[in-house]
Amino acid sequence: MLAGNSIGKEFTVTSFGESHGKCVGVVIDGCPAGVPLSEKDIQTELDRRIPPQPKIVSGRIEKDIVKLLSGVFNGFTTGAPISMTVENKEADSSDYEAIKDLPRPAHADYPARIKYGGFNDYRGGGRFSGRVTVALIMAGAVAKKLLSTFNVDVLAYTKAIGKVKMDKSLSPEEIRKLRYKAAVRCPDLTCAEAMEKAIVNARKEGDSLGGIIECIALNVPAGVGEPLFDALDADIAKMLLAVPAVKGVEFGAGFAAAELKGSENNDAYLMKNGKIVTRTNNAGGILGGLSSGMPIIVRVAVKPTSSIAKEQRTVNLAKMKDTTMKVTGRHDPCVVPKAVPVVESAVAIILADHMIRAGVIPKVLKERK
Amino acid sequence: MLAGNSIGKEFTVTSFGESHGKCVGVVIDGCPAGVPLSEKDIQTELDRRIPPQPKIVSGRIEKDIVKLLSGVFNGFTTGAPISMTVENKEADSSDYEAIKDLPRPAHADYPARIKYGGFNDYRGGGRFSGRVTVALIMAGAVAKKLLSTFNVDVLAYTKAIGKVKMDKSLSPEEIRKLRYKAAVRCPDLTCAEAMEKAIVNARKEGDSLGGIIECIALNVPAGVGEPLFDALDADIAKMLLAVPAVKGVEFGAGFAAAELKGSENNDAYLMKNGKIVTRTNNAGGILGGLSSGMPIIVRVAVKPTSSIAKEQRTVNLAKMKDTTMKVTGRHDPCVVPKAVPVVESAVAIILADHMIRAGVIPKVLKERK
Amino acid sequence: MLAGNSIGKEFTVTSFGESHGKCVGVVIDGCPAGVPLSEKDIQTELDRRIPPQPKIVSGRIEKDIVKLLSGVFNGFTTGAPISMTVENKEADSSDYEAIKDLPRPAHADYPARIKYGGFNDYRGGGRFSGRVTVALIMAGAVAKKLLSTFNVDVLAYTKAIGKVKMDKSLSPEEIRKLRYKAAVRCPDLTCAEAMEKAIVNARKEGDSLGGIIECIALNVPAGVGEPLFDALDADIAKMLLAVPAVKGVEFGAGFAAAELKGSENNDAYLMKNGKIVTRTNNAGGILGGLSSGMPIIVRVAVKPTSSIAKEQRTVNLAKMKDTTMKVTGRHDPCVVPKAVPVVESAVAIILADHMIRAGVIPKVLKERK
Amino acid sequence: MLAGNSIGKEFTVTSFGESHGKCVGVVIDGCPAGVPLSEKDIQTELDRRIPPQPKIVSGRIEKDIVKLLSGVFNGFTTGAPISMTVENKEADSSDYEAIKDLPRPAHADYPARIKYGGFNDYRGGGRFSGRVTVALIMAGAVAKKLLSTFNVDVLAYTKAIGKVKMDKSLSPEEIRKLRYKAAVRCPDLTCAEAMEKAIVNARKEGDSLGGIIECIALNVPAGVGEPLFDALDADIAKMLLAVPAVKGVEFGAGFAAAELKGSENNDAYLMKNGKIVTRTNNAGGILGGLSSGMPIIVRVAVKPTSSIAKEQRTVNLAKMKDTTMKVTGRHDPCVVPKAVPVVESAVAIILADHMIRAGVIPKVLKERK
Repeated sequence: MLAGNSIGKEFTVTSFGESHGKCVGVVIDGCPAGVPLSEKDIQTELDRRIPPQPKIVSGRIEKDIVKLLSGVFNGFTTGAPISMTVENKEADSSDYEAIKDLPRPAHADYPARIKYGGFNDYRGGGRFSGRVTVALIMAGAVAKKLLSTFNVDVLAYTKAIGKVKMDKSLSPEEIRKLRYKAAVRCPDLTCAEAMEKAIVNARKEGDSLGGIIECIALNVPAGVGEPLFDALDADIAKMLLAVPAVKGVEFGAGFAAAELKGSENNDAYLMKNGKIVTRTNNAGGILGGLSSGMPIIVRVAVKPTSSIAKEQRTVNLAKMKDTTMKVTGRHDPCVVPKAVPVVESAVAIILADHMIRAGVIPKVLKERK
Repeated sequence: MLAGNSIGKEFTVTSFGESHGKCVGVVIDGCPAGVPLSEKDIQTELDRRIPPQPKIVSGRIEKDIVKLLSGVFNGFTTGAPISMTVENKEADSSDYEAIKDLPRPAHADYPARIKYGGFNDYRGGGRFSGRVTVALIMAGAVAKKLLSTFNVDVLAYTKAIGKVKMDKSLSPEEIRKLRYKAAVRCPDLTCAEAMEKAIVNARKEGDSLGGIIECIALNVPAGVGEPLFDALDADIAKMLLAVPAVKGVEFGAGFAAAELKGSENNDAYLMKNGKIVTRTNNAGGILGGLSSGMPIIVRVAVKPTSSIAKEQRTVNLAKMKDTTMKVTGRHDPCVVPKAVPVVESAVAIILADHMIRAGVIPKVLKERK
Repeated sequence: MLAGNSIGKEFTVTSFGESHGKCVGVVIDGCPAGVPLSEKDIQTELDRRIPPQPKIVSGRIEKDIVKLLSGVFNGFTTGAPISMTVENKEADSSDYEAIKDLPRPAHADYPARIKYGGFNDYRGGGRFSGRVTVALIMAGAVAKKLLSTFNVDVLAYTKAIGKVKMDKSLSPEEIRKLRYKAAVRCPDLTCAEAMEKAIVNARKEGDSLGGIIECIALNVPAGVGEPLFDALDADIAKMLLAVPAVKGVEFGAGFAAAELKGSENNDAYLMKNGKIVTRTNNAGGILGGLSSGMPIIVRVAVKPTSSIAKEQRTVNLAKMKDTTMKVTGRHDPCVVPKAVPVVESAVAIILADHMIRAGVIPKVLKERK
Repeated sequence: MLAGNSIGKEFTVTSFGESHGKCVGVVIDGCPAGVPLSEKDIQTELDRRIPPQPKIVSGRIEKDIVKLLSGVFNGFTTGAPISMTVENKEADSSDYEAIKDLPRPAHADYPARIKYGGFNDYRGGGRFSGRVTVALIMAGAVAKKLLSTFNVDVLAYTKAIGKVKMDKSLSPEEIRKLRYKAAVRCPDLTCAEAMEKAIVNARKEGDSLGGIIECIALNVPAGVGEPLFDALDADIAKMLLAVPAVKGVEFGAGFAAAELKGSENNDAYLMKNGKIVTRTNNAGGILGGLSSGMPIIVRVAVKPTSSIAKEQRTVNLAKMKDTTMKVTGRHDPCVVPKAVPVVESAVAIILADHMIRAGVIPKVLKERK
């Protein structure tokens, strides 16, 4: 577990595969026995990764087909490790040999070469490619199926693309219904159009955009999280920062809380229909690393796609000399839309893990007849 | 390790102790053998936790004295676990019995009660108190001693208090020299005065303030970090969000990167004095979860102190009824100054852990004569 | 967790302290909240480590007094880390300086010196001393208290000392009642006398003896263990081999099973009072790494004490030359009696860990009034 | 990692797949970059699992073909996770439906049903089948390739089958050369014939046999192991007891040491060709949980195959009544020969893990041209 390709202590996700290798895959160890699960459950989530409109994606458009290899029997999880793969079919490695010694700015090429002594598979970024998030989506699909049994819903959506921001406040129901309608994965469909335009423009300029993704999780009971260090927000933050291109994460009021006074930021408790709730939710549903019972709210900052068509300065590592390069190949001008289901999966995985850890989800679901 | 009071895989820090118990303490397992270490090294860091001017701290002002219990022999670490404690001397538990059933807004009281079935030590917040950060500082002192052997320097400082922001850009040398001069731990001493005033004002109003802390780490070599999940930024973010009151974390350009274009955000490589550097450092020194060789830059948002003198709404958990409360006792109107050495320690711990993981720091330092 | 001083994933025990340092101590993270616990519970177990008759022990006879530092509030565990220390009072380090460069045969002196580059605290064996088993007993006391709540009983006793073997078969009730009566910790009191004589004779010869300890665990429910690798027997074996001087471990029929036929070794199932039991228990209560519901039976081989008064060959590490040495100081001619409560503790710790892991023991015991 | 299908902290092996599912597979995370590796290296080891003479195996004889899915590029390991699968082709599940409610004596059927609430894949024992050891052999092949770079050799062989024991002492060179010559994997070929006869006889009687496997590891440097708990012997023992059918493990003199005196058991140090060695090796190459530099010697007791043709008593779990059963299907009368390469792999995996942990094997092998 020292090499960091596993995450989660109860619901443990181990990722493998490279961008241009045979497949990307995942093993989930610790999924409770008795969760109804089929390849179709996984496929549905995988299909959400590829936005329908090709205007905003110029990257690989593979129809990723999941193969479920173990851990499911007679339609239910067995308690044994669940393994799944998706083959890489569209990989085109021809572009990469030429730029082997030219690290692409903002990519992991240079530090990866140092770390692995040059043995790393650099084609398409190898292990550092966004392609490997397919494994997260597969694992997230299982987590979401498990969470749904406990009425927990995880909903991510695009909150901003570059400088275009969604200001409208939508209800969870609207978000659930509308978040995958637009190619940019923004549930405010008017705003979504503006976002799409921004992406198309950036693409025309040979440039790229980033954005903000918000994720909310409903119905997580109070008391989930393992302080001090395995605080619920700490583990969600870790997982989200492990998603390629994420540069920041905040909960509830987040960075804005730094400017508030205590009397403004504190969420007052009150009784509502016999339940304890808070009037506001600046905490984003997490206090002292524990879920408070209110919706969990987390936002991530996604940087603009590193691969751009414009010429960029770099160095030639073989010659140790300054040079310039153009990143060729197929690249998305904005990865935010593809990242939305990844963020949803990432949060779902951590919630599944922590709900089992807290004993809220048992090791065997009592559903077998 | 499922109960989350340990962090780090090579340099493993286990925290124990409560706010009003006998002591707070820490065990470090995995510190390389051969690091020169004394109680004085720890004490120096502990002393930084208490700002000298009592104007801005109304909380407990304990002179915390470290006891080094194991793991050091003849002035050097031995490779065995290092354990340390600091006694709790000033704990005053009288305030807490009265409000046992009244969860303080924005504190962990309510979810902790749910999680531990009411068995948790609620006095002073127990395990959720800022008091337990003393353990982090002790562990951080060891990490910093170790890192200094490898020329790595970790420097945190106050960047903002409420709406007062430090805009001036200081060199690392200035930050190193000046960051502990002012009680608010802002190295821009003019700005520090304004910050101090803001805190004093908030205190007079019975209110509190938050702020922003920035931390930079110098001379971390390229290639440190363990993708996918134990990415260097992911692990730093986890650790920092486990620090009480932190609600957000960002690296380099952070949330601002979401608004930049790729051509603006990408850090171009260039040769400088025979070394590979980047022209800008929007990445904050981390690419693909690996250190890039540039300074690591991370910022955290600290929420305003939850304990305020103003009356607040809450519920009585025994009666399940709405009520109001005033949080009495001694509380800091702003925890940012105390949090600065904590953030420094937190980042140092993760860097020590990851530099050992990467093989950059060996298991035995070759210094023994 | 890479440095191996922690064990257990749910009930995690971290050991610290050296033979001749300030103390030996332990942190337990993951003990469920709500277990009634006091210093007296720990002290009772600690007192079992020192056999009453000084005839068979020439080693340090310290009255070890436990200090409970954290994790208990109002007489119950809180769910926070439980930390405990015992001071070292009788350590006499004068003997060790002289033989710093002369590794004692069968001790860890030589490989420890290599491993830690000479920085290890070699006094009294440092971390490798039997003294550190005090930490196991403290942790075991907590585990046993927890297990007793679930009616699980762990009983270790001396089965053989050198060539003197206990052949009589005693009931669990007799073992429970009699195992600590004799100084050698053999519940067959006649056999115990012969064992004691053997130890006294070995001592007179300046020699030492080993032996066999058996441990049985009653009322562990079926289905506890986490295959493949965290099999219940695998984890018990790991823990027991980590106890100093243990050189082998076997379950049920153990090595004798290698000579049996399947038809002899297989334990047939049958119904007894409405419960499923097996006619024999050659499996020692574990099948496929899972508890079967039958008593768990494990035996360990303890080697003769490495420290003997006779002259032995060794090498001088500073001069890299052959030489001879006599191990002076106070040493037990047989460590088996002291190891009996250690084995009991070791098995209890693993059972507590695995019963929590299996969900059989919840995270909060429902006992609070 | 709480569900126990991963082992190793640096060289982490995660196993997946069931006896009658699509495949068995493995992910290795943490293999250093730069190890030359091909599918052929794995295949060679897999082929050793199936003894050539069908007389002594009546179980499934599948030609297991490895598929290497990730982690290797241009003939070298990359530092990324290595994943491999072997398809299950010969699985015949027809036998199992009939006996779903009849737990086979000495198998894991009954406790597995309890543990997983009946959701486990019981066909052919599912996760508890010897079939899953194929994953260990794949992982072991990588470990052995890595170890061979450091001149470490791991050699297992059959020491006893039932009551037929190999008494002859062979040199490591002879063991290396001869251990896979005979179908029973005993390098003493005369003894091997007697063993084979014993197996054939047991088979005729519808019965089964167990045995003893010894494994030696050469050239492990001194100082490998992570006390207290991750002692080298402790981790080897854990791994070996996780191998199906293993009921005991001992190092060096093992259980026999319990009968020796200290003066007999202690291994005296002496200089030999400028190196420190011990005159005897009763310690089996491990002192205080650390390798001593001498050959590591470990033996395991393998119980007789649980599946026998004879009628056995059991209970009907659906009716909770006594009954009898015959285990039909294809089963090996003795699993010892198939277990030999498994034991070799198991020990190699732990040695690879611990040599990386000790820093003896670096994270990147310097072999790239």
